[in-house]
Amino acid sequence: MSYTVKPRTLSGFMELLPEKQLQFEAVRDVLTRVYSSYGFYPLDTPILEASEVLLAKGGGETEKQIYRFTKGDTDLAMRFDLTVPLAKYVALNYGSLSFPFRRFQIGKVYRGERAQKGRYREFYQADIDIIGDGELSVVNEAEIPAIIYNTFKALGLRRFKIRVNNRKLLSGFFQMLESSLPAQDMMRVIDKLDKIGMEKVAEELQKMGVSQADIDLIGGFITRQGTVAELLAGLEDYRGRNELFDLGLDELGTVTRYLGAFGVPEENFGIDLTIARGLDYYTGTVYETTMLDHPEIGSVCSGGRYDNLAEYYTNKKLPGVGISIGLTRLFYVLDEMGYFNKEAASSNVDVLVLPMTDDLSAAVNFARQMREQGLRAQIYYEGKKFKAKMAYADKIKAPYAAILGEDEIAQNQVALKNMATGEQLSFSYSEAADVLKAAAAEKALLTIINEVDHAE
Amino acid sequence: MSYTVKPRTLSGFMELLPEKQLQFEAVRDVLTRVYSSYGFYPLDTPILEASEVLLAKGGGETEKQIYRFTKGDTDLAMRFDLTVPLAKYVALNYGSLSFPFRRFQIGKVYRGERAQKGRYREFYQADIDIIGDGELSVVNEAEIPAIIYNTFKALGLRRFKIRVNNRKLLSGFFQMLESSLPAQDMMRVIDKLDKIGMEKVAEELQKMGVSQADIDLIGGFITRQGTVAELLAGLEDYRGRNELFDLGLDELGTVTRYLGAFGVPEENFGIDLTIARGLDYYTGTVYETTMLDHPEIGSVCSGGRYDNLAEYYTNKKLPGVGISIGLTRLFYVLDEMGYFNKEAASSNVDVLVLPMTDDLSAAVNFARQMREQGLRAQIYYEGKKFKAKMAYADKIKAPYAAILGEDEIAQNQVALKNMATGEQLSFSYSEAADVLKAAAAEKALLTIINEVDHAE
Repeated sequence: MSYTVKPRTLSGFMELLPEKQLQFEAVRDVLTRVYSSYGFYPLDTPILEASEVLLAKGGGETEKQIYRFTKGDTDLAMRFDLTVPLAKYVALNYGSLSFPFRRFQIGKVYRGERAQKGRYREFYQADIDIIGDGELSVVNEAEIPAIIYNTFKALGLRRFKIRVNNRKLLSGFFQMLESSLPAQDMMRVIDKLDKIGMEKVAEELQKMGVSQADIDLIGGFITRQGTVAELLAGLEDYRGRNELFDLGLDELGTVTRYLGAFGVPEENFGIDLTIARGLDYYTGTVYETTMLDHPEIGSVCSGGRYDNLAEYYTNKKLPGVGISIGLTRLFYVLDEMGYFNKEAASSNVDVLVLPMTDDLSAAVNFARQMREQGLRAQIYYEGKKFKAKMAYADKIKAPYAAILGEDEIAQNQVALKNMATGEQLSFSYSEAADVLKAAAAEKALLTIINEVDHAE
Repeated sequence: MSYTVKPRTLSGFMELLPEKQLQFEAVRDVLTRVYSSYGFYPLDTPILEASEVLLAKGGGETEKQIYRFTKGDTDLAMRFDLTVPLAKYVALNYGSLSFPFRRFQIGKVYRGERAQKGRYREFYQADIDIIGDGELSVVNEAEIPAIIYNTFKALGLRRFKIRVNNRKLLSGFFQMLESSLPAQDMMRVIDKLDKIGMEKVAEELQKMGVSQADIDLIGGFITRQGTVAELLAGLEDYRGRNELFDLGLDELGTVTRYLGAFGVPEENFGIDLTIARGLDYYTGTVYETTMLDHPEIGSVCSGGRYDNLAEYYTNKKLPGVGISIGLTRLFYVLDEMGYFNKEAASSNVDVLVLPMTDDLSAAVNFARQMREQGLRAQIYYEGKKFKAKMAYADKIKAPYAAILGEDEIAQNQVALKNMATGEQLSFSYSEAADVLKAAAAEKALLTIINEVDHAE
């Protein structure tokens, strides 16, 4: 029979070759490990939800992109982020959860965006959120970016900056102006500053009826530069004129002070008064994270404080703070930049076992002992010539091949070939385990990203 | 504003409470660890595929259950298993893969089955497959169930049996009969034996025109009982009458011999001549796995050898062997049976840090040091009374609370309260790390399943 269908993967859907997938898994493992180390629960909500639940908020740009369909009588939609399912989950399980409720979720979400390079229709988001019952300490707003700092550091990233602002501060500032435009409208324009520049922002504000005097004041305010201490000191000049502003300034001071206390160096965080986040959902601290050498890719990790996680599902007040990494896009970008460390997560095995006799019992026995020591050992069972076996070891980038011929078996030994150097030595099984464990431990110290080689 | 939408999760979609999710993740971690230790690549294919690709094989019971819809001009379907996407992947990336290609995938699949207790519409499958290019050694057919044995053992399961058969053996046997019915049709009936019993199987065969003499022969053949050695010896009586039968018998002998060599004790595997697997896809060795104390739940892990993984996508001959765990259903069943070990994976933290002063720096410092030691430490930031803090520690089942009051801080110490015994002692930070690490290491030795307590 001849085949009938041309195999293909949908455009906008990431599907990696085995070696790339190893790198992706290494990234995901780091995120899981760091998030877990801060006591976040893993969460796994369905990819399909009732449309009425998923679209409770309704309207907006997102709705057009949603994968929505009916099956039987049910109107279904695939989740487009992890925040709405979290809101549903917390409202639904309110009585069973302990607050503050800390959860992380690394899962696929779906948006039928226009297909373009580096943009995905199916992509992973990696979210952490801390949700309070009625109230939540502002310190959590400093811990969240500190966790992101530690996550990025554990990945091997160095040249990034977590930029922090506070929407109360911005709102308060806008209330000081003569313009009576709602602060939210202003912030939606300010939020575009990175993309369109100050001149266009000024134009848009003018069209909305903001006076030139106000535009100058706004421009002067949001483009302030300086260290955290300098900016905080400068902002003190406005204190006492607007209550919301003062509250925002207090929060910004607290968050940046704790960020330092949490061990985040100032080269990796700063105050950026231009960050507004378009979403009205956020009510206080907001974050964006930029790759210093690649500002053009925009924020790779964003979030903030919100007052009402689940207002569409419950009357309970559930304030929280969260941040989201667009993992699939980040992975794509890091890969495009050549940031991945080729030495880390480079193979599916620590050793490839090559039996040279018909009797496989030595190979089986050796492999089992290696696995008992926590090593990854694959036996090559195919009856191929030695050359073909070694070619396979090369292709899967096995760091070592363990050769078990008649001589080795007779002496209860194994010949370990270092595939990088070509060196081949005979060992007892337990000596071999030590060699392999030492090599695996050395690899485990490597970060999956090796940014420095490229950026410096 | 009052809420507008009642939060709910679709029926047939598993969504776990945080503590249950910890258990699920622990199960998934064991699978990932064991599969990886045998050199399987992780794989992650899209959940959505083009319908024409996913349904290349067409027809069948499955097609009715599929979540299929159009978006724009594209006819899309959600994957209903992990085998079809694997076939597509291997055909598509044939030139980039190294064969034998070993991959595992733990992912969600979708079937719009009739909703009923313990049956899910969104569920995880956990698959391993080994695929050859043109050929693949029969030894792989023994390694696959050996991996399942080690996986189940690592989970803590003991009372299970991997039942092995060979479709060549069955086909060959059917060819020896006077009936000229295709072996495949016979096997589809035999496959129902577990569910409907021998009497009904006999009735069905009779309806299909099989003679009473043949039915007696079939019944006598498939219901043979005994040890592996006894059954193999008995089957030798038929040798020399049918080539396919002889080949199947050789394979069954090899597979069972290697299963022993791979360290699988005979209490956990056996030959079962009733196993036919309905799917024509399988061509040789077939497996099913039964919980000995709960045969009523059927096979929890099934698979077998196939000759043509991707015949719908390529003319390349890609033989392989694979097995699949219905993970969501297995999790549900184990939970219903009360098999989960309440002591294992019981909390999101190793220690909950309770600052008793306004200055949080000691808590931050202590928690950071604990995380650097690989421990999971959460700081409780909320300004609640001591009693409320301890109640939270209880609710999240923290094994220890680390209390940092003025006295402790003054002495560079921390008070560790063992939440199970109530004992509270003061330690230096490094002593505390040792206590917590010892407790975490003890927990790590526990298997997530504690079958023995219940079954014995």
